[in-house]
Amino acid sequence: MDKFYIGIDLGGTNLKTSLFNNSFIKIHEVRVPTKAILGSDYVINKIANTVSSLLTSHNLSSKDIICIGIGVPGILDVENGISKFSPNFYNWENVNIVKFIEGTLNIPTFIDNDVRVNLYGERYFGAGKDKDNIVLLTLGTGLGAGIIIDGHILYGATSSVGEIGHMNMYRNGRSCKCGSSGCLGRYVSALGMIQTLKDKLDRGEKSIISDWIDHDYNKITANMISEAFDLEDTVAISTLYETGELLGYGLVNVINMYNPEIIIIGGGMSKAGDRLLKKTREVIKNHALKISAEACSIVPAELGDSAGMIGAAFYAKCRYEKNLNY
Amino acid sequence: MDKFYIGIDLGGTNLKTSLFNNSFIKIHEVRVPTKAILGSDYVINKIANTVSSLLTSHNLSSKDIICIGIGVPGILDVENGISKFSPNFYNWENVNIVKFIEGTLNIPTFIDNDVRVNLYGERYFGAGKDKDNIVLLTLGTGLGAGIIIDGHILYGATSSVGEIGHMNMYRNGRSCKCGSSGCLGRYVSALGMIQTLKDKLDRGEKSIISDWIDHDYNKITANMISEAFDLEDTVAISTLYETGELLGYGLVNVINMYNPEIIIIGGGMSKAGDRLLKKTREVIKNHALKISAEACSIVPAELGDSAGMIGAAFYAKCRYEKNLNY
Repeated sequence: MDKFYIGIDLGGTNLKTSLFNNSFIKIHEVRVPTKAILGSDYVINKIANTVSSLLTSHNLSSKDIICIGIGVPGILDVENGISKFSPNFYNWENVNIVKFIEGTLNIPTFIDNDVRVNLYGERYFGAGKDKDNIVLLTLGTGLGAGIIIDGHILYGATSSVGEIGHMNMYRNGRSCKCGSSGCLGRYVSALGMIQTLKDKLDRGEKSIISDWIDHDYNKITANMISEAFDLEDTVAISTLYETGELLGYGLVNVINMYNPEIIIIGGGMSKAGDRLLKKTREVIKNHALKISAEACSIVPAELGDSAGMIGAAFYAKCRYEKNLNY
Repeated sequence: MDKFYIGIDLGGTNLKTSLFNNSFIKIHEVRVPTKAILGSDYVINKIANTVSSLLTSHNLSSKDIICIGIGVPGILDVENGISKFSPNFYNWENVNIVKFIEGTLNIPTFIDNDVRVNLYGERYFGAGKDKDNIVLLTLGTGLGAGIIIDGHILYGATSSVGEIGHMNMYRNGRSCKCGSSGCLGRYVSALGMIQTLKDKLDRGEKSIISDWIDHDYNKITANMISEAFDLEDTVAISTLYETGELLGYGLVNVINMYNPEIIIIGGGMSKAGDRLLKKTREVIKNHALKISAEACSIVPAELGDSAGMIGAAFYAKCRYEKNLNY
């Protein structure tokens, strides 16, 4: 009988779980609210229950599943399967996810960082197929990156490689939760871009967006800025251009430091597309090292928010087979 | 009979060659001027002649040498042993060093970038022993870096990983030969620091250094700035502090992006020591991600300008044994 894999993307909002066959064809996907506010015991039980229900509904037992992979945000002890700290979760410290899931379901389980399981997804099934030098940019509420160089996915001394959201771009810039200021992610991210727009409105610039939000700044979204851009709203245009330009300088540093052959741009804010990336490409062309820039293409992610599930499942397969190229 | 290795550091000024025994103990070292101005034919013949003389003087033949490693500055095709371009050499394009040396001496020969062979040296015999996450900074006339993460030395799509000298620090800064402006190396390097001092003198600030150089700016050296610092010269102090501070912000990005456990600082300008690094450490403490910064120590290089020779020899051994961890 066929064997299966399970890939899980544990987000602060949604818990996404998929069952894959041996060829990584998706058999069934389940999305349920994480309800992170209910704490770690609730969440890890929810993971186990979701997997159990999935098995039952397909007449499968634990023995039919080769292994489970889970992508988890925040700081992990990957080797020991422990989620040490995650900023989007409540009552969440040193949660031994792997021990609990293996103990409850009796299926080999592996965890890795959410950005890295997305990178596994895009590397093996999406925009990065057959590439050995990849930067995956997650441009959403915040800004992060996963890195593959010379075929190796990078972890580093504390598994923190690729924190490009905290690249220092200004000596005296917007303050950041990390304790520093002028970090790239404080400008280039949905929250950062919205702040740039708010600053313009505060300075008295006039935008159509003010009419849409009834002057309640909390209602501004990144999508609205794209919509206003398409209506030729000058404030929205300058906001997207400035954001795209600073992203360009950030990627100059990414290209000069990591020398990737492909930068894959994913995350919700990447939907802005060329509204944002036109300026980004201009800056890269004019400011990155020529030989490195010419070797590097910038492409959108292909798997959307499904990358994490298939990537987690594939990562688990590699760990299970002790065949992980790192 | 014992077998030997030869390690060569091909610099723009000096050609440094060492004979090592099987345990990488140095038997003999030769330093001769490269005379790069005489062109590629002259230089590669000089390499071959230097090795020949070294063998003769020790009563050795080609068969006694396991392999030769050469560190070469500039852009290389490592696999095919070709030096494609090197800014410090004359009449130098697509020089097939390996083919020439192997053809002339009949000894297996391997080349790699000068920064990377230095990194091999410090990793296996110097300050980076037993470390798997290393950034080696070469802080000399210019600024470069070699990177090891998770035990792999990084190359990237065009073997250009680690070009931290071209990290964009200012949107509108000093122009750089690379075509961009505001690059870190234009400030943090011997040439950059001297420029910072000149700018201060041009603004009318008074320094003891003016007396030493008879108002000829071309005579200013990085060492002079350290000497004036020790005499409590305020212009020298502010020059070293500003340079150290910007190096700090550059290393914030290095730490956040590469997550090394050790940053080894080598190159001639590193002799400035704590005059430079005091401010660097302060900035890192206050601006890098806490978990990454706490895991990272900053230390001086141990092998000085001998790192390239032993590193090149060891690199060649690894290539020869097809045992290179990359």
